[in-house]
Order: sequence, then C-alpha cells, then structure tokens
Amino acid sequence: MPDLREYLESNRERHLDELVEFLRIPSVSAKSEHREDVARAAGWLAERMLEAGLRTAEVIPTAGHPVVLGEWRGARGAPTLLVYGHYDVQPAEPLDEWTSPPFEPAIRDGNLYARGSVDDKGQLYLHLKAVESHLAVRGSLPVNVVFLIEGEEEIGSAHLPEFLRAQRERLACDAVLISDTTMFAPGLPSITMGLRGLAYMEIRVRGARSDLHSGSYGGAVANPANALAEMIAKLKDADGRITIPGFYDSVRELTEAEREAMRALPFEEEEFRGEVGVASVEGERGFSTLERIWARPTLDVNGLLSGYTGEGAKTVLPGRAMAKVSMRLVPDQDHETIEKMFIEHIRSIAPPGVAVEVEALHGGQPWRADPTEPIFAAAARALERAFGRAPVFVREGGSIPIVQAFQQTLAAPVVLLGFGLPGENAHAPNEWFSLDNYARGAEAIAYLYDELTGG
Amino acid sequence: MPDLREYLESNRERHLDELVEFLRIPSVSAKSEHREDVARAAGWLAERMLEAGLRTAEVIPTAGHPVVLGEWRGARGAPTLLVYGHYDVQPAEPLDEWTSPPFEPAIRDGNLYARGSVDDKGQLYLHLKAVESHLAVRGSLPVNVVFLIEGEEEIGSAHLPEFLRAQRERLACDAVLISDTTMFAPGLPSITMGLRGLAYMEIRVRGARSDLHSGSYGGAVANPANALAEMIAKLKDADGRITIPGFYDSVRELTEAEREAMRALPFEEEEFRGEVGVASVEGERGFSTLERIWARPTLDVNGLLSGYTGEGAKTVLPGRAMAKVSMRLVPDQDHETIEKMFIEHIRSIAPPGVAVEVEALHGGQPWRADPTEPIFAAAARALERAFGRAPVFVREGGSIPIVQAFQQTLAAPVVLLGFGLPGENAHAPNEWFSLDNYARGAEAIAYLYDELTGG
Repeated sequence: MPDLREYLESNRERHLDELVEFLRIPSVSAKSEHREDVARAAGWLAERMLEAGLRTAEVIPTAGHPVVLGEWRGARGAPTLLVYGHYDVQPAEPLDEWTSPPFEPAIRDGNLYARGSVDDKGQLYLHLKAVESHLAVRGSLPVNVVFLIEGEEEIGSAHLPEFLRAQRERLACDAVLISDTTMFAPGLPSITMGLRGLAYMEIRVRGARSDLHSGSYGGAVANPANALAEMIAKLKDADGRITIPGFYDSVRELTEAEREAMRALPFEEEEFRGEVGVASVEGERGFSTLERIWARPTLDVNGLLSGYTGEGAKTVLPGRAMAKVSMRLVPDQDHETIEKMFIEHIRSIAPPGVAVEVEALHGGQPWRADPTEPIFAAAARALERAFGRAPVFVREGGSIPIVQAFQQTLAAPVVLLGFGLPGENAHAPNEWFSLDNYARGAEAIAYLYDELTGG
Repeated sequence: MPDLREYLESNRERHLDELVEFLRIPSVSAKSEHREDVARAAGWLAERMLEAGLRTAEVIPTAGHPVVLGEWRGARGAPTLLVYGHYDVQPAEPLDEWTSPPFEPAIRDGNLYARGSVDDKGQLYLHLKAVESHLAVRGSLPVNVVFLIEGEEEIGSAHLPEFLRAQRERLACDAVLISDTTMFAPGLPSITMGLRGLAYMEIRVRGARSDLHSGSYGGAVANPANALAEMIAKLKDADGRITIPGFYDSVRELTEAEREAMRALPFEEEEFRGEVGVASVEGERGFSTLERIWARPTLDVNGLLSGYTGEGAKTVLPGRAMAKVSMRLVPDQDHETIEKMFIEHIRSIAPPGVAVEVEALHGGQPWRADPTEPIFAAAARALERAFGRAPVFVREGGSIPIVQAFQQTLAAPVVLLGFGLPGENAHAPNEWFSLDNYARGAEAIAYLYDELTGG
C-alpha cells in the first residue's frame, strides 16, 4: 500500500490538471456578467468533492452567490475539521498587464499563473486532494471533515455570517482550517496566529456656513482645515504613541519570548524599505518593524479633503474639512470601546469656532490564536513533515473579518495555514502560485489529519 | 447757469437709461461666445466718452480684450487724474437664481439689478457723468482726465500691466481713481486705504512609493497625511500667531489712533457672525475682527487632499498628501521674503520618513495708501459734500493686484473710492447697485475735480 506522499506524488499531474480546469472558470464574484461562471465554479467544485470521496456535496443558494458544502463524517468519535475557502476570484483587470491571459493557466518556472491560483482556488483545492489521498490509500479518514467553500469572499462575504448562524449546529466542529494567507518566506511554513482589528472613523469639521473669500475673512473666522490638522496632529506624540486617554489600557504587551521569536524571523529591513519605497522606517519608538505591524496598535489618516484641491491657487477659506482616520487594534482592545474613546477625545480637543462630528464607519476586533490549543502543535508537526522544516508562528497587520465570524459562531479555534508566498500578486495582474507549495500543502494537510489523531 | 448737482439731478433719468443700455450688453470676458459682446461694450463706451465731451476715445486692441482709452487734456498746468475701471463682467450663472434676467436690467426698491451693475459698469460710468456735468455746465474741467477702462479684469487683467508699461508716458498722471470697492455701510462714504498681500503655497508630501494597505504596513511606514497635519498644526501657536521665524519682523503695528478709528466704525460683530454663519469669531489673540481682517497677517489652509475621500471606509495608507496654504500679508511684509521663510520653515519641521516639496504658486505685495497725499483730503471733502457725511477710511482684507501695478508703473497715488455696498452680490446672482449711490457717486466725483484745484 503506497503511503500518502507516494499517492500525492504519483497523482501530481492529474491534480494539477484539475486545478487548471478550476482556474479556467472566470468566477469573478464582483461582476454580474460572470454570475453564471460563478455558479458553474460552484457546481464543478461540488462534483470534484464527490469524486475525491466526500459523501455529500451540495450547492446551497444564498441571497448572493452559493455556498458549496461537502462532508465526510465517517470517523465516529474523532474530531471534526471544517475547511473554509472561497471559489470566487478578484476581477482580472487591467488585462493588458498579464503576461498570459488570467483564465488560461500557464506554468512558468514551476509556478502556475492564473487569476485565483493562490487566492484561493489553489489553496482550497489542496485540502480536497489531502482528503482524496487518505480515502484512496486507506479507504477512510481519521477525522471528520466539512468543506465550506463560499463564492463571495472577494466582495465582503456578506452572506457568510448569516449562513454560519443558521447552520451552526450542522457546522459544529473542533477546528476551522483556512488556507488563504502566505508563508513568511519561500520554504518557510507559517501559521498565522494574530490579526489586528480596526476602528475606522470619519471626522467632519464645519466652520462658516459656506466657503468664504480668504482675503475678506481670513484671520477672523476659524478655518476647519487648520482645525482638522491641529486635531490630527494632537493624536500622536513625538514618540509615535497615540495620545487618546486609555488607548493602550487593554493592549497585551509582547512577552520577551514573543519578541525573541519575531527577531529570529528572516526579516530584512532593507528589503522591506526597497519594496515599499521609503528611505527609512518610522513608527512607535521602541519597537521593530514586525512588532509595529503585527503587535502594536496604530493610527493612520486614510483620507483628507478640504477646500480647493485642483491646479493652481484659489483663495478660498473652506467651510468644511473631512478626514478618514483608522486605528489598527491589537488584543485585547475592543473596537467599540476604542471608537467611543476616539469620539470623546476628538470632541475634547476640538478648537473653538468649528463644529466637529465624528462617526465610526467600520470596525472589527483584533484576533489572536490560543497557542495552547493542541491543533497548533499538530499543525506544526504536519508542516515540518511536509516541508522538512519547523514552521514559524507569524501574525498579520491586517484583518480577516471571517476569522472572527467563525470563532464567535462556531466557538472553535481557527487555524490559518497559508501556502501562498509574498509577492504572488493575489489581487494584481500575473497572480501565481508555487506548484511546489501546492504539493507540499496537500501533503501537510494529509499529515495533519494523522497528527491530530496520533496516527 | 445750473450748478453741478442741478445738472446731475435733472439728467438723472437719461443717465440711468444710458447705464441700462450699457448693462444690456453681456460683456462676459471669461466666455469666448461673448467675445463680440465684449467688443461691442468697448465700442459703445468709446462713443459715450465722446458724447460726454472727452476729446478723444480709442478702442485699443490687446492680445486679449481691448482697452478703451478716453482723454480730456484741456486744463493746461492742472493735475491729471487717471480713472481706471472695467467694462467686462462676471459670468451670470447660475441663471435660474436670478429674480430678473441678468442682462435685462430691472429696478426694484431703488436698486438696479443686473450683472455688472455695481461691478463695475455702474461705478465706472458715474465718473463719465461727472465729467459730462462739468463740461455741460461750465464748458471745461478744472483737471485733465484720462479714462482707462479694460475688458479683462474679471479674468485676471493679464494684459494690463504690459499695457501700462508700454503706455507709461502717455498715462502719466497725478493720481489714479478707482471705483470698484464698497462703502463700509449704507450712507457712509468710504475710502479704502489698505489691502493685504498674498503668499500662496503648495505643500506636497510623499511617503511610500504608492498607496499601501493600512493593515499590512500601518505603523511601520510614515504616513504623509499625518505628517502634513503635523506640519500645518505647527504653523500657529495657541494664540493664533504664526510660528514661522521672522514672520512678524516687518509687520507695521497698528497705532493707537488707527485702532481707535477702527473701533469707531459701525461694525456689528453679531451681524458679522450671522452673515458668515459661525457661533464665534476666532483669530489672533489681542485683536478685534476688523483688525484681524485689515491689519494682521494670517495663514489659512485653502485645500487639503490625500488618500481616499469617497464614501465609506477604504483602508489605504496614502502615498502622498497635498495642502494649499496661503498667507495674507500686511505692510511692510514682502511676499517673496515670506515665501522663502515658509519654504525654509516647512523643510525644518518636516518629520522623518517623508519627502516634502514646497512651491510658491502666487504672490502679491500688501498695499497702504499714503494718507498725507493731498488727494485724500480732497476726496474726503468731495464725499462729504455729496453724501452729507464725512467718509471713513477703511481697508480690505483681500488683494487688488492692479493697484500695485498702477502704483509701481505710474508712480502716482491710487485712490480707492468705492460706491458699492456690502451684499450687492458682485460675483453672484442678483447683482445690484443702489441708484442713490450711483447719483451720489457722480456728484462726489464732480466735486472732487473742484476740491483738487480749490474750485
């Protein structure tokens, strides 16, 4: 009887051909002209689920694009893993920047180029191939698996939270596996253990009833743009720390062990600067770049608008000014508490002569995995077996709202096991996925089932 | 023989009819479809000049719209007055906000409604009627007069400075009279003795090479919008004073007499607040509203732009940010010196991690009349005779660039004798001119010729 690796190796070509077929379907969820393609991708995937050996596979309509739900529940008494992914893709435009057409997959230098290759068709499909390998080699799986693959991730997963709530009993599981993130570096398997939250605010400042002539009135009437700049400037001190009272109260400080682990990562600041195009990195004093991005809250202006912004000089004293300001949050900050603090603080520093409104536009909680959950150790062993190297535990500076939705609704740990690489152009032209990571990923997932059950 | 007032009174209807005819010509200099109307207005005016008794009247082409030049030089040895005005008008849009059509003059409540009524056809035409009254009543004028009426004032007087330089010998004069400003209040004749200058700057801040995801990079890369806000906030202190080193060095402080004269003016702060729509006035500590507008320099943001400014939340860390910032200047500040100071200061306070460019877009010198020039006393007497009340000496917070051009090129005092009223909608729908001020203004100008020559 061949082992799992042998099976995956000997079926590699066929598995690749299947993925190529999947990628040929332009399942662009954002565009109504692709509605049928999106539905076709869902149907195609449900058929492949049954072929791979899942016992059921359904295409379940939502108010938007359908969810594909596949199940294999033959391991009575064993843990249940829920695999989440998405079969929809980003729009491919601008088309003329693609070296090969986005929906005609092409292999160059061992990489598969196509829209959706890494985000997320390739990464979800390797989970199905892991299941297939177990069922083909051994006739059964050591765990129960549920595949929940949605078609609206690229447009905000609007119907997923409701779907989870409605199906929460059916979807009950011991862990949620998601492969939609990246590895820290080539050859270095990674598990993402933290995400930042968000509190996104809009500040609107009004001065005079309308724009005024800056000559006839300048100097005697408060200028809302100056007032806005003054308030924004007051939100951080010279050390780059946020001055909102109480802002840091709930911030879980990094332990020395965590800092040491971050320092040990192969992070090249010079490379980072070159990639971003800055001469120096800047941020909160006393923290490294990775610490600043992964583990520290921040405050950034996302947009500014006031008065005349066209070419040349117009002597207007603006009647209003607007800023969008967002804060990235870290455990254990609560986005609603932070939003209230922000609103209260802005009101307290608003200069006289202007009226200030503050609105919370969007928010999300920060997230940290609980590393004592046994699945993380199991995942680490599985990754090491597949990649020949122990994984690193990383974080991301951004937010993945569905992680919160899964954790809250299903009360199960979420494991972010990403097989993408930095620079794979997930939302840009020439998206690609390393075929080696496609193979290693399937193998790692196949091992994970065993590692979870002592197999 | 009737006196000047009797002549003007008894010809009042005809003088009004003439002005109405003038106002019917839509001489909108900004719009190419009105090019012929602009030319027609110039020709019409030249004919009226000859009818009024000027000895010559020419329509002189420029690279833009023509200048109308009329002369009466029969008072050998007497002073020469140059009257400047403009026969072009602002566009009338939005048309549906006019109670009566902009180019169909209508009289309501003793006011003449039409585009150009106060700015500046009505105000320049009363000078011609003053000349006519002298020539009709006495057969001659006690002074020499030159009318220089341009057709491009509303589009920036682009060709006037060159015209003045080219014709400087022909235009040599003892004073320049301009009626294109307003009286401080109804019934209160006014002479404008000061204008503020301008230094208009643009600040451009660059951070990363392009916009970044605020989650993946926020906290580790300088944000140009935050940096811009920080710099702008530093430009003023808590007392509303500008912090640029040396900024106030050349500011001529107000004398106690000047402050007293401003305090004596019928200025109602509550009315000002209501007009502008603010709950409180704000500005440099220690100065009144009129002092702030007329005699103190200021610094205002005129425009702000960065990142995402549409609806809702977009988590972008902007790659660039822009502000337009202008300073109003007072004697004896020099706009080029201030521009240099601003550029140097911004560079010195630019935070690390961003690249900052500063550019001077537009500048002009502040201006003050020399009140010891005898023409001001003569003008005051003439105004008092016509209006029955001594005039007030006022200033304006804005700039009138041609004032500098006249003063510099012709080396003669400029007298700003305005007969408009606040609220006459000079650049807005329903522009109007008080017919009473039209009559009083013509009378005052007629008296001025006598007052200048002891007549």
